[in-house]
Amino acid sequence: MSIRAVAEAAKASLPKLAKSTGAARNAFLERAAHNIKRSSKALVAENAEDVSSALASGHTEAFLDRLALNQSRVDGLVKSFLDVAALPDPLYGLEELERMASGLTVGRMRVPLGVIAFICEARPGAAAEAAALTVKSGNAIVCKPGKESAKSSKFLGAIMRRSLAEAGLPEDAVAVIPAMGREEILELVGLDDCVDLAIPRGGEGLIRMVAENAKVPVLKHYKGVCHLYVDAGADLPSAVKVIIDAKASRPAACNALECLLVHEAEAPALLSALAPELKNYRVAVRASKECMGHLAQLGEALTEASEEDFDREYLDLALNVAAVPDLDAALDHIRRHGSRHTESILTNDLANARRFVEEADASCVMVNASTRLNDGGVLGMGGEIGISTTKLHAYGPMGLKELTSRKFVVFGHGHVRG
Amino acid sequence: MSIRAVAEAAKASLPKLAKSTGAARNAFLERAAHNIKRSSKALVAENAEDVSSALASGHTEAFLDRLALNQSRVDGLVKSFLDVAALPDPLYGLEELERMASGLTVGRMRVPLGVIAFICEARPGAAAEAAALTVKSGNAIVCKPGKESAKSSKFLGAIMRRSLAEAGLPEDAVAVIPAMGREEILELVGLDDCVDLAIPRGGEGLIRMVAENAKVPVLKHYKGVCHLYVDAGADLPSAVKVIIDAKASRPAACNALECLLVHEAEAPALLSALAPELKNYRVAVRASKECMGHLAQLGEALTEASEEDFDREYLDLALNVAAVPDLDAALDHIRRHGSRHTESILTNDLANARRFVEEADASCVMVNASTRLNDGGVLGMGGEIGISTTKLHAYGPMGLKELTSRKFVVFGHGHVRG
Repeated sequence: MSIRAVAEAAKASLPKLAKSTGAARNAFLERAAHNIKRSSKALVAENAEDVSSALASGHTEAFLDRLALNQSRVDGLVKSFLDVAALPDPLYGLEELERMASGLTVGRMRVPLGVIAFICEARPGAAAEAAALTVKSGNAIVCKPGKESAKSSKFLGAIMRRSLAEAGLPEDAVAVIPAMGREEILELVGLDDCVDLAIPRGGEGLIRMVAENAKVPVLKHYKGVCHLYVDAGADLPSAVKVIIDAKASRPAACNALECLLVHEAEAPALLSALAPELKNYRVAVRASKECMGHLAQLGEALTEASEEDFDREYLDLALNVAAVPDLDAALDHIRRHGSRHTESILTNDLANARRFVEEADASCVMVNASTRLNDGGVLGMGGEIGISTTKLHAYGPMGLKELTSRKFVVFGHGHVRG
Repeated sequence: MSIRAVAEAAKASLPKLAKSTGAARNAFLERAAHNIKRSSKALVAENAEDVSSALASGHTEAFLDRLALNQSRVDGLVKSFLDVAALPDPLYGLEELERMASGLTVGRMRVPLGVIAFICEARPGAAAEAAALTVKSGNAIVCKPGKESAKSSKFLGAIMRRSLAEAGLPEDAVAVIPAMGREEILELVGLDDCVDLAIPRGGEGLIRMVAENAKVPVLKHYKGVCHLYVDAGADLPSAVKVIIDAKASRPAACNALECLLVHEAEAPALLSALAPELKNYRVAVRASKECMGHLAQLGEALTEASEEDFDREYLDLALNVAAVPDLDAALDHIRRHGSRHTESILTNDLANARRFVEEADASCVMVNASTRLNDGGVLGMGGEIGISTTKLHAYGPMGLKELTSRKFVVFGHGHVRG
């Protein structure tokens, strides 16, 4: 089947999907959880073949780890389907109903967006989890998972379609095609007559390729150059814990800390307390000149940062450190180097907390919390299909509501404009 | 100044604008209202020159009417600035604050979008009204009004910038450049490093040119092929009034009725009652075969509709009419021919009203009301900068809130992901 035929079939599934009850969409999720669980041995076996191929092609250990599915990860996938089923139905509720002076009643109603093109990385559960959120919100999805997960993704795609049929929903609402090349991905995101939105996830190169060539709207983030600013008077022992969590709990995540900014008054005490922890976690540090002395015990793991270093997203156990004279300088640094992903201030100063929250230009701004907490699950949205650092439509983690639009609903009794 | 320089200056004004108080942004609106009022004679004189040039170039009477400013229209413009000033400040309120089980408090905060590229038609007040909404919501705007309004638009642009300065705001937040040609418009909407959103308004050709070539997100509607469906059992005298309002109160508006669908059981009575009114308003009718007989008294104003006619947006005193056997057929007709703008049902049947509201795929769905009521002002949003029939970000009239994004705000007390 051609890419166009798959996208058109997805579009043709929309009216039936849009008319389905929340119960039917939940039945799909429950059937999918059941079917994945029942087929978990076969799924793990398919995945093992993906892993051996990837091993043979010389992928890194970190890559193989993301690709691999074991029973415990399959259990996690099953749970994510049941978690999405437990979320409230996002569709068709009437919100913000107001009675106008004219007697018209005006409200908003959430409706599906349509067909989502989802281009993702090699983690085999990614496309399945995206399909769960997409179908729950009444949308159809055409997924292009990383080709290294071809066998496991195909297996999961077949389960998705069978589960749709078992729930009485059109199976064309989910299509998983690991075999798309660059040309076919660009064809898919060019089909503006049947695709409504593209969500690319993965490396910056892939995302730029999609964003620059798509004819359909794209929700995306390129990178997460996330900062923590430790204000004068912040609680330093707590700061050390938060910094280590933000940097070391999962360095490859986009919400991991890339640059620590510290008020110059706290730099000596904070950095001296932090250095042994950074050393312990084997974090390589690039520091601005004035911080070098306080971090000397890092030895070879410490180098002086260049201006360009402050634009880098390491996605690794590496961290930039700079001292700033005040909050304005911290905000200015973030304006110049931030990526609108996640910015956090550690402070006890209410006025500074307020200013940081209002002025730091990012999809998620935090006070006294680790940047790693910017996550759809942690923030109470259930799952997330991605994170947007564009301000249009969605800004931050994208959950069920971000997969809907709101139409105006107007109730009159013979009202005219006149 | 080059287009890039203007857009960069607009971008450079954002931090100061974002930090401004709602009071300062209202002061701009009040100063602008005052300055327009005080200069109204000079403005009307500039506009008279625009009108004579347009007259000499052979523009239609309808065009000249849209272009012309008299004292009463200037008063209307002044009032629109004061109306926007009276609206609540959309920025920085914390919404949906929730306490998570973890003790994190999570909310959303409205922030400006950035720099808006606004490309509009010849009505000289359009760019000024857009600037009012844009600055009120903390955004900067680069306007390209229709070139026929060059003198009056330039005059108003200078007032906008003076009023910004008087309010202590950066005057580069508003730029009005009537002299842009096609190449310069495309340059402007290609500047994705300093323009955040494009809103084109006007003819379908202009909007398609912007949408197909822009590198920045575009909010738009191409056309308004709006339907009214008169259900079996609807109140017919009320239906006649609503239909005439929807078609004849301002036929050139995008929310004007283009196609009447009537349940076949009501077709004879409704169309016989409607025909004299249509005749009275000189509405030309294209009807499906089975309706022809009931509209015979229209004489030469009646022709049989082709299938292609049902895709047309007349923007004139012309109307399609078709009979349908039931609600499903009406919804199917709308699915095939609608433009996601405004769809209305006239009914007394609760189940059909509910189905129509959920299933008609449009930015505004109405029950027992004229399609002409789809308007930001009527729906309680204050002014509107445009209407979107794309489902991303805004769907329907775009007011102050649609000119903002919401960032996540997270308050912890040393929280980590762990």
